[in-house]
Amino acid sequence: MSFPLPPGSTIGILGGGQLGRMLALAAARLGLDIAILTPDEDTPASRVAKTTFVAPYDDAEALAALAAASDVVTFEFENVPAKVVETLTRLGAEVAPGAKALAVAQDRVDEKSFLNAAGVATVDFQAVNSASEAVVAIGRIGVPALLKTRRDGYDGKGQRWIRDAADAEAAFEALAAPCILEAPAAFVRELSMVAARGRDGAMAAYPLAENHHENGVLRRTLAPAVASAATEAAAIAIAERILVGLDYVGVIAVELFELADGTLLVNEIAPRVHNTGHWTKDGCVTDQFEQHIRAVAGWPLGETTPLARVEMTNLLGEEADAWQTLAAEPGALIHLYGKRRAVPGRKMGHINRLKPL
Amino acid sequence: MSFPLPPGSTIGILGGGQLGRMLALAAARLGLDIAILTPDEDTPASRVAKTTFVAPYDDAEALAALAAASDVVTFEFENVPAKVVETLTRLGAEVAPGAKALAVAQDRVDEKSFLNAAGVATVDFQAVNSASEAVVAIGRIGVPALLKTRRDGYDGKGQRWIRDAADAEAAFEALAAPCILEAPAAFVRELSMVAARGRDGAMAAYPLAENHHENGVLRRTLAPAVASAATEAAAIAIAERILVGLDYVGVIAVELFELADGTLLVNEIAPRVHNTGHWTKDGCVTDQFEQHIRAVAGWPLGETTPLARVEMTNLLGEEADAWQTLAAEPGALIHLYGKRRAVPGRKMGHINRLKPL
Repeated sequence: MSFPLPPGSTIGILGGGQLGRMLALAAARLGLDIAILTPDEDTPASRVAKTTFVAPYDDAEALAALAAASDVVTFEFENVPAKVVETLTRLGAEVAPGAKALAVAQDRVDEKSFLNAAGVATVDFQAVNSASEAVVAIGRIGVPALLKTRRDGYDGKGQRWIRDAADAEAAFEALAAPCILEAPAAFVRELSMVAARGRDGAMAAYPLAENHHENGVLRRTLAPAVASAATEAAAIAIAERILVGLDYVGVIAVELFELADGTLLVNEIAPRVHNTGHWTKDGCVTDQFEQHIRAVAGWPLGETTPLARVEMTNLLGEEADAWQTLAAEPGALIHLYGKRRAVPGRKMGHINRLKPL
Repeated sequence: MSFPLPPGSTIGILGGGQLGRMLALAAARLGLDIAILTPDEDTPASRVAKTTFVAPYDDAEALAALAAASDVVTFEFENVPAKVVETLTRLGAEVAPGAKALAVAQDRVDEKSFLNAAGVATVDFQAVNSASEAVVAIGRIGVPALLKTRRDGYDGKGQRWIRDAADAEAAFEALAAPCILEAPAAFVRELSMVAARGRDGAMAAYPLAENHHENGVLRRTLAPAVASAATEAAAIAIAERILVGLDYVGVIAVELFELADGTLLVNEIAPRVHNTGHWTKDGCVTDQFEQHIRAVAGWPLGETTPLARVEMTNLLGEEADAWQTLAAEPGALIHLYGKRRAVPGRKMGHINRLKPL
């Protein structure tokens, strides 16, 4: 491959969900084609892609076909198995973001260790590989503390609070996997910074977003967040340390805790376009999806200047049934993902409500 | 069919070019699927559509397949043969905009006759079906006058100026088809109004756009055009008369001549999304592509409020080769259509340069 990829090139995407779909729509605008690898038939992304390979992610034949069809391969979820990236790389495919970003994002201990080594603050934490280690860790970190599986788990799954030191062993046994024990963060606000790094090392950050979760799932994003210049600058510095430390290419999301004194701690990173960046689609000159495509294709990064203040609200499960009312709302843009079934809590779409900056 | 079509419904589109592509991308954002009918393989639109039928537009089997796959059928070009719409309608498919809009848009005499009957001013004109009728018509209208074929012809093709009455017969014989003779318009500016009408009869107009042509091809659009409130109101009144007169559903483009005294004459109408509306993609809350999809799907029309002042420039032929430079321009959004070959003069993409309102 030679970068930048000219129009007419093909971006391979692992995953067929809404993020792949929105990446595909952005790529199309730039004259780029999309090949999807997904284990499922009739996915949101495959319905807007030129080519779809339906197979498990580790299917050798499908990976060979994807590598052959694609000028660069990216992904819409961070739990891509390491061996899939190895296979694609061995087949000569360029994968972006790279193996290091995936490894770090897949393991909460590696993630926080990387962040601290890069000079980025997190909550105190400790690896916990057994019930007895859980007891030791609680002894050092104290209660309450949050025990999470090192790998997998999302939207609040695979974690439990330990509020009494006596519950440490039971908590570990309930999760029954290598874990991380995290000190709580006395945060006043959850923020996130979506940023990007191009193949040339150029970086671009979006304005901070303020996020509100319910039951561990993102409910609303307000962006640009009302934040001081110092907070904005601190967040950009954090994002840049992470992007450089991972020799990153693409869009990354950095979830932040803002403490009462203004300190920012990194909660976690997602090596992909992110729900807290959906506001950029209608709120910024270049949205996060186009930005990611630009980065992995070796194009110059786009401008991240905000054009509007956006309130992004996820449409979960049957909330999307109100599409007629939502579509009639002035100053709002509704995004529906084309999912066939509205399972309760499932992200079916979102609405971006615009206000002047 | 029952309207509004819920998310997950399929919009059929006749045509596989860039307008179909941009309609498909807009539909995807609303959770709607796309089926394309095109005579060509590997078209810009089919690469972002769920389903593509490759066959001539009048292929009975393909039309049956399209009708079966689609909850509503629309088109990206106005020269859809009347019998194609008849066939689709007979098969039970809903076609929007309807047969009347197509008939009027396909015949320049019928078009101007309809406009005048609807109380909309045009240049003086006369039908010319023979060389001798050309002589008679020139006798009444005078020189210079423009002889055009009644049907087909676009971007300046199929027409010639008659500057000397003695050339009338030769001009007709060169075109060798039923013609219209048009008086010249002493216009100071070419404007266009893109507007829409929903299934419920609601109408919405975009701000006026100012258009600059070169060699009969659109080069640049500046929008919102600097125009008086009276001019804006006059254009809206014209668009509404046309939309109501055609019992129209969808987006329409009305090309206007602005005379020195502020009078607006309609040059022609296009019963579809239009190149002079491309600025709306990045300049308005709801762009013309989404607006058309909303209208034909029976959704409420979206808000047409402008968010920015846009200079839209078409990228013709090899101009699109400068994509790297164009993609790096701050405050600009590049749109590339995924066309495989850059024939000179071919519309390969466009760039929307944004400025504050």
